[in-house]
Amino acid sequence: MDKKEFKVTPWEVSGNIDYDRLIKDFGVEKINDTILSRIKKHTKDLHFMLNRKVFFAHRDLNWLLDEYEKGNKFYLYTGRAPSGPVHLGHLLPWIFTKWLQDKFDVELWFQFPDEEKFLFKDNLSFDDTEKFLHDNMLDVIALGFDPKKTKFIVDTKNANLMYKEACKVAKKITFSQVKSAFGLKDDSNIGEIFYTSMQTVPAFLPSVLKNKKIPCLIPHAVDQDVHFRVTRHVLPKLGHYKPSSIQCIFLPPLSGVDGKMSASNESSAVYTTDSIEVAAKKIRKYAFSGGRATLEEHRKLGGNPDVDVSYQWLRMLFEPDDKKLQKIHDDYKSGKLLSGELKEILIEKVSVFLKDHQKKRELAKKNIDKFLL
Amino acid sequence: MDKKEFKVTPWEVSGNIDYDRLIKDFGVEKINDTILSRIKKHTKDLHFMLNRKVFFAHRDLNWLLDEYEKGNKFYLYTGRAPSGPVHLGHLLPWIFTKWLQDKFDVELWFQFPDEEKFLFKDNLSFDDTEKFLHDNMLDVIALGFDPKKTKFIVDTKNANLMYKEACKVAKKITFSQVKSAFGLKDDSNIGEIFYTSMQTVPAFLPSVLKNKKIPCLIPHAVDQDVHFRVTRHVLPKLGHYKPSSIQCIFLPPLSGVDGKMSASNESSAVYTTDSIEVAAKKIRKYAFSGGRATLEEHRKLGGNPDVDVSYQWLRMLFEPDDKKLQKIHDDYKSGKLLSGELKEILIEKVSVFLKDHQKKRELAKKNIDKFLL
Repeated sequence: MDKKEFKVTPWEVSGNIDYDRLIKDFGVEKINDTILSRIKKHTKDLHFMLNRKVFFAHRDLNWLLDEYEKGNKFYLYTGRAPSGPVHLGHLLPWIFTKWLQDKFDVELWFQFPDEEKFLFKDNLSFDDTEKFLHDNMLDVIALGFDPKKTKFIVDTKNANLMYKEACKVAKKITFSQVKSAFGLKDDSNIGEIFYTSMQTVPAFLPSVLKNKKIPCLIPHAVDQDVHFRVTRHVLPKLGHYKPSSIQCIFLPPLSGVDGKMSASNESSAVYTTDSIEVAAKKIRKYAFSGGRATLEEHRKLGGNPDVDVSYQWLRMLFEPDDKKLQKIHDDYKSGKLLSGELKEILIEKVSVFLKDHQKKRELAKKNIDKFLL
Repeated sequence: MDKKEFKVTPWEVSGNIDYDRLIKDFGVEKINDTILSRIKKHTKDLHFMLNRKVFFAHRDLNWLLDEYEKGNKFYLYTGRAPSGPVHLGHLLPWIFTKWLQDKFDVELWFQFPDEEKFLFKDNLSFDDTEKFLHDNMLDVIALGFDPKKTKFIVDTKNANLMYKEACKVAKKITFSQVKSAFGLKDDSNIGEIFYTSMQTVPAFLPSVLKNKKIPCLIPHAVDQDVHFRVTRHVLPKLGHYKPSSIQCIFLPPLSGVDGKMSASNESSAVYTTDSIEVAAKKIRKYAFSGGRATLEEHRKLGGNPDVDVSYQWLRMLFEPDDKKLQKIHDDYKSGKLLSGELKEILIEKVSVFLKDHQKKRELAKKNIDKFLL
């Protein structure tokens, strides 16, 4: 695939993604210093994912902050379609969402659309999604969300709350619209066609339940933007606010900076349940390196952190300290730091994270009920 | 509209319906004497709606009776989309369903798809359907269904049970299929497109809940056949039986034997809540007469019971006694019985029915909970 060819849809992410072009194509706003300082006024410090533009785009954040400053608190909405094990790429937006919850002291609605992947994947059964649903919830809880302020909403299990609201949404969307927005076709199944209505519901359900208009902020990876474009088109017609969003780029797969991590490709992802040994082995074996072909060359010409997956994982997820990251960057670029050494820095970070996460994940098993609607 | 032009779809029934052509077009089987005597073996007597071919067609009734005779009892499934007041035409298949429940001692699942008409009608809100839902339930209960053997299933309120199963159905149906089956279009809304999946669910839900394959018999008016054709196509792919059906013609509107009664046209229907005076007035004023232009002509040439709405209502709903009906028929045809006199016979029957139904409808208000899932 050539530099210009890439694809970003809810069902496929591939190629070398030009995020600036996405900003233009999708019609989202870039996260700039003005909006960052506006956020900082409320959060005191800025999460490194904001400073480093891992969260790089938004919709209507200024409006959301206007409302917040007027005393009209927002709530957060994000989600996970259970269809496989959780990997580190999934955690990225959730870790940021947890930071937002803490800093703004707001409610989070976490959707598990357990029918989505069932409808879109030929070989996935509801028995599969049921297993992954439980498993994936543990990963979310392990990140430390406040159970008093966090509600899990599961499409098939909370359909009594959701289906009627989804019908109100569906009445405002034609097949032509989902055809052009999602590329659905005449031979798409009628569940796929209906599905986006269900993904819209948590963007206004709390307003329905509390009978007042509450602003909504959706942190999500950029591939989901099309769902919320449809949502934003429909909700004013139902008397609700358009949701705001804050959107991140993808944690690159081990194989290189193209596309996104895939849960179904074991050599592209580190799962949250991988043992420290397996994770280390995967990084050593598969993590694409920006280093040179030989030691001599590397010492002389230096490595390329921009395409080095280990460096990118540190930048996007594992090294919050800007100074330490800068030193790693400079040492690698100068040739002082070797690819193998860089990998070991990442492995150390990943090991500490996994050990802690897996402990919390185990404890989460007792706490699922606290999060259910 | 000429004799050959008519339309029978779930959304529109109009013209002079050629039921024999429907049997051919829909591919259903005619109710004949062989199947009637097979039914009679179990029911001892035959409901007049069977003898008079008001229920005129079926699918797989022989298979259903085979299973019944092997000890594999079926359950009944019928329904009502709440979108207006109940009129006498709605009651017809339900009265027959009650007879089936009593004779075969079987369970009935009565669906109230409260989203259907909301999705298909521009000006109908969920506030409207909610009001009619409660109101319509009273009419069903008033007919005397056994609360121990009858379950009301309401799509938006029982979605926790239904939506997941509907997704399994939806995964097996493409937009092309609903386009050709229902005439849906690219500008149909995505709720309309999904809807048939929800109508399919009660045709197998009891089998899912009891974890065994239970035959299902759906008594319904012939306009709903297309839904269950889709259902029958899909269910074997999900490991369920195809449902059987037994199908009736439409009680003609007051205006004449074309089309079907419409709840939104007050001069075409007698509602279950009409006072005896109003019902009588409607019949006197609007009921299309097969009588002659003058008294002299009528006495001489006789009336035409085939197109006389009062006679048809007696035949289809209000005069169970075959001998009495025959006498009315013959007297009318010979000119002995005048149109006005025929109307008074019907009015007397309707008055007795309404008085009793309205009393039971009032009592039903305390009993709704007994029928809810």
